[in-house]
Amino acid sequence: MTSPAATPAPPYYAVIFTARRNEQPGDGYAETFERMFALAQQQPGYLGYESARSEGFGITVSYWATEDAIRAWKAKTEHLAAQREGRARWYDAYELRVARVDRAYGFERSE
Amino acid sequence: MTSPAATPAPPYYAVIFTARRNEQPGDGYAETFERMFALAQQQPGYLGYESARSEGFGITVSYWATEDAIRAWKAKTEHLAAQREGRARWYDAYELRVARVDRAYGFERSE
Repeated sequence: MTSPAATPAPPYYAVIFTARRNEQPGDGYAETFERMFALAQQQPGYLGYESARSEGFGITVSYWATEDAIRAWKAKTEHLAAQREGRARWYDAYELRVARVDRAYGFERSE
Repeated sequence: MTSPAATPAPPYYAVIFTARRNEQPGDGYAETFERMFALAQQQPGYLGYESARSEGFGITVSYWATEDAIRAWKAKTEHLAAQREGRARWYDAYELRVARVDRAYGFERSE
């Protein structure tokens, strides 16, 4: 993750997932995160994703074409299992927000 | 920043700011970021803020009660100067998205 996601012109949807996580090396988190990322990218309506993390606090934003695409991704069997695992083991607290992106503008250095 | 922001029931608004930044120690970025954070918290309609950063890629999400509150914050003189400085010096690329949060749910470990 080095750059903002390349998303189309609004409107589209964002899932803002912010979480405080307990850090246990070898707890399977990284593998599951990678797997979910790979899986999400194959979902219909997936537009992009951004993620950053500071000292156990992480923000992941995924972008979607429609709310139905978000619902389908949320309900996917393997993803549901990962969500349960997250609550059982990895996350101490999280907040998930579904939002409609109405305006967007970007900047890129031209030099 | 250690926990998800405590926001009210939706609807409310999110400004998702994702940026790739060149890292120059002593370039004034940290001081300006702190100053802008302090200033934003005093703005009418400010609800909360979350920030995380990985290897020069950062995500900051601020939450606002109304779109007018976002517009007022964007147009504030000292903030405008910081935005210019960001484009001139600190950011190689960024994307700013304004979104309406329609649904939110959270989790907190009870133990």
